[in-house]
Amino acid sequence: MTVVAPKVEKEEEQVVNPWEVSAGKGGIDYDKLVDQFGCQRLDAATIDRVARLTGRPPHRFLRRGLFFAHRDFNEILDLYEKGEKFYLYTGRGPSSEALHLGHLVPFMFTKYLQDAFKVPLVIQLTDDEKFLWKNLTVNESKRLARENAKDIIACGFDVEKTFIFSDFNFVGGAFYENMVKVARCVTYNKVVGIFGFSQEDHIGKISFPPVQAVPSFPSSFPHPFSGMEQLRCLIPCAIDQDPYFRMTRDVAPRIGCQKPSLTESRFFPALQGESTKMSASDPNSAIYVTDSEEKIKMKVNKYAFSGGQDSAELQRELGANLEVDVPIKYLNFFLEDDHDLEQIKKGYGDGSLLTGKVKNLLGDVLYEVVKRHTRARAQVTEEMVDAFMAARPLPNMFG
Amino acid sequence: MTVVAPKVEKEEEQVVNPWEVSAGKGGIDYDKLVDQFGCQRLDAATIDRVARLTGRPPHRFLRRGLFFAHRDFNEILDLYEKGEKFYLYTGRGPSSEALHLGHLVPFMFTKYLQDAFKVPLVIQLTDDEKFLWKNLTVNESKRLARENAKDIIACGFDVEKTFIFSDFNFVGGAFYENMVKVARCVTYNKVVGIFGFSQEDHIGKISFPPVQAVPSFPSSFPHPFSGMEQLRCLIPCAIDQDPYFRMTRDVAPRIGCQKPSLTESRFFPALQGESTKMSASDPNSAIYVTDSEEKIKMKVNKYAFSGGQDSAELQRELGANLEVDVPIKYLNFFLEDDHDLEQIKKGYGDGSLLTGKVKNLLGDVLYEVVKRHTRARAQVTEEMVDAFMAARPLPNMFG
Repeated sequence: MTVVAPKVEKEEEQVVNPWEVSAGKGGIDYDKLVDQFGCQRLDAATIDRVARLTGRPPHRFLRRGLFFAHRDFNEILDLYEKGEKFYLYTGRGPSSEALHLGHLVPFMFTKYLQDAFKVPLVIQLTDDEKFLWKNLTVNESKRLARENAKDIIACGFDVEKTFIFSDFNFVGGAFYENMVKVARCVTYNKVVGIFGFSQEDHIGKISFPPVQAVPSFPSSFPHPFSGMEQLRCLIPCAIDQDPYFRMTRDVAPRIGCQKPSLTESRFFPALQGESTKMSASDPNSAIYVTDSEEKIKMKVNKYAFSGGQDSAELQRELGANLEVDVPIKYLNFFLEDDHDLEQIKKGYGDGSLLTGKVKNLLGDVLYEVVKRHTRARAQVTEEMVDAFMAARPLPNMFG
Repeated sequence: MTVVAPKVEKEEEQVVNPWEVSAGKGGIDYDKLVDQFGCQRLDAATIDRVARLTGRPPHRFLRRGLFFAHRDFNEILDLYEKGEKFYLYTGRGPSSEALHLGHLVPFMFTKYLQDAFKVPLVIQLTDDEKFLWKNLTVNESKRLARENAKDIIACGFDVEKTFIFSDFNFVGGAFYENMVKVARCVTYNKVVGIFGFSQEDHIGKISFPPVQAVPSFPSSFPHPFSGMEQLRCLIPCAIDQDPYFRMTRDVAPRIGCQKPSLTESRFFPALQGESTKMSASDPNSAIYVTDSEEKIKMKVNKYAFSGGQDSAELQRELGANLEVDVPIKYLNFFLEDDHDLEQIKKGYGDGSLLTGKVKNLLGDVLYEVVKRHTRARAQVTEEMVDAFMAARPLPNMFG
């Protein structure tokens, strides 16, 4: 359904935001804008002060009220007057090949400020923005950014004081490119459907799913996978991560990527039983890899939910309920030998094994796992961490 | 207002997503999950096939149905059977110092897959996610990521095949850290209020405002500004960019940063007049820096909206309306000499200057601007672009 607003009303309405500027019949009402946005007017006294502080006539854009509003510009002048420093930031969305004269205006003014105040400058080329809003490819956006950089440099900036950067190249390379590609394919309504965010949630949450999505694509890792963009990916994970990869698989073909495959596990249960995952906030709900032998055995004996009967007599008579028994579930995960596991389940189920005995067995198995892990971890040096975490080719990766 | 759901209903509802797992009384209903998520069951035939293809017994997690579901795992096996390659991706949200045994499960299984299939592996440590969801600092999240990396390495992964990365370190360094900090301070409702996004907009738009916000903070640029985190920033821009920086100024003190200051300009008008910005989609609405002398003069003569009278006689009698005259507005931007500008405005306003003469003057001024720009741009080499765009210290930046 399309609702068409009455034309007269529409003409009277002034809209100014980064993507749309439309004025009423009399042109932009700048006074109204200043009040609406809550910024300050750039008055003659401030302009005189700029001239005095910099020892040069104010730029014609200042003299003629073309730069007409500000926010806290006076504070910048205050600190400059005290001999303190500041820096300049401006930018451009590189949506077109050739600039027009209007595009030069902020750069001409910025160059004047750099020269007058002798300060560093960063210039952001939002090629990611243009990819997100316009129907451009990543490569075309990046090419336009570089072409526009030439026009910007031609305005005369000082290379000793100026850093020009493209978001795609500076913010995060290939990984960030894929994040932005994924993000463009997923609506707000879609992430709400998948993840259940609310409108009061911060936008960091809404921005995050692409971050977990893109390791599914080899092109996110040019160091090892350059030239292998169609390499398939397998993701082993617990099943609670499925929503991320449902989203990823939905997006993949739309951005020319292979869908990742998954193998998905059950949850490792809390000592107290099957109904939740273990919780870091309750240390007695889990065995930690830092727990001592005594603590492991104490936790198993005291907290592991038992499917055995309340007394030895009843246990011998009825046997244990293996379906709800946590020690059996834990042995299922960590006891390697299938035959041993069967023997334990059989004896425990028919009542010939008592709960205490099964818990003792489990304590030994878990301590063995933790002991092995602790020993291995103690041998991990900072250099090894650096080696694993270096962005690097992996020449022997299929060897 | 808090709505409390009836306890019974709550207990019966099974919730599984990346941040919450809660089961009904009988524990997680995995069959229901598989159907709800739309993944596939990992059957005995597939497990046998894994054993056959890898020439080793399937991992106990497979034998015992602990990895119980999948998506397209069969396709991975198909291509492996044909001698093709794939890679593994798994990860961890580093929210705690010490892992518990449940945390080891996916890594143990992934190590088995790496060994069995001889494939590369990427391991994502989502320190950004933990920053966004938990009340951790960036540094604490990064420290936990590194500590957890040690536990992961201790699981025995092959350094020749394994890349472990932290999002904060690999995705985009200092700039990305600030993006995530800003994002955590801005709700979805807030960006909708500022930028007017709809729920059908893609999340790339919602994610973008922090990208334009963070060049306002010197800590986004460690190369030139390391150790100068409180350096103030001044942003010259057109006033349509104010919404970004209103948001930025709102967030700045909450993340320990200085608010950026701004100077804000009017819009450079289209040749057709004041009511809009120039549009790249209408080449006759603007003078491009690539336009020839002839084209510039033609555009000025043909398209620049005139406030002069319809005939020379009327113009001499009544003079021009300078308020709406585009040539005067353009001269205001680009004619440097204040005295000359005053003379032109006086003569044009009182009728002694005709529109044609003013347009000729403007044509000369604009052609001069374009000629200078074209000449300067022709001297910009690729090496100069590289020099400006290198992430580097700027030792002389205040010189």
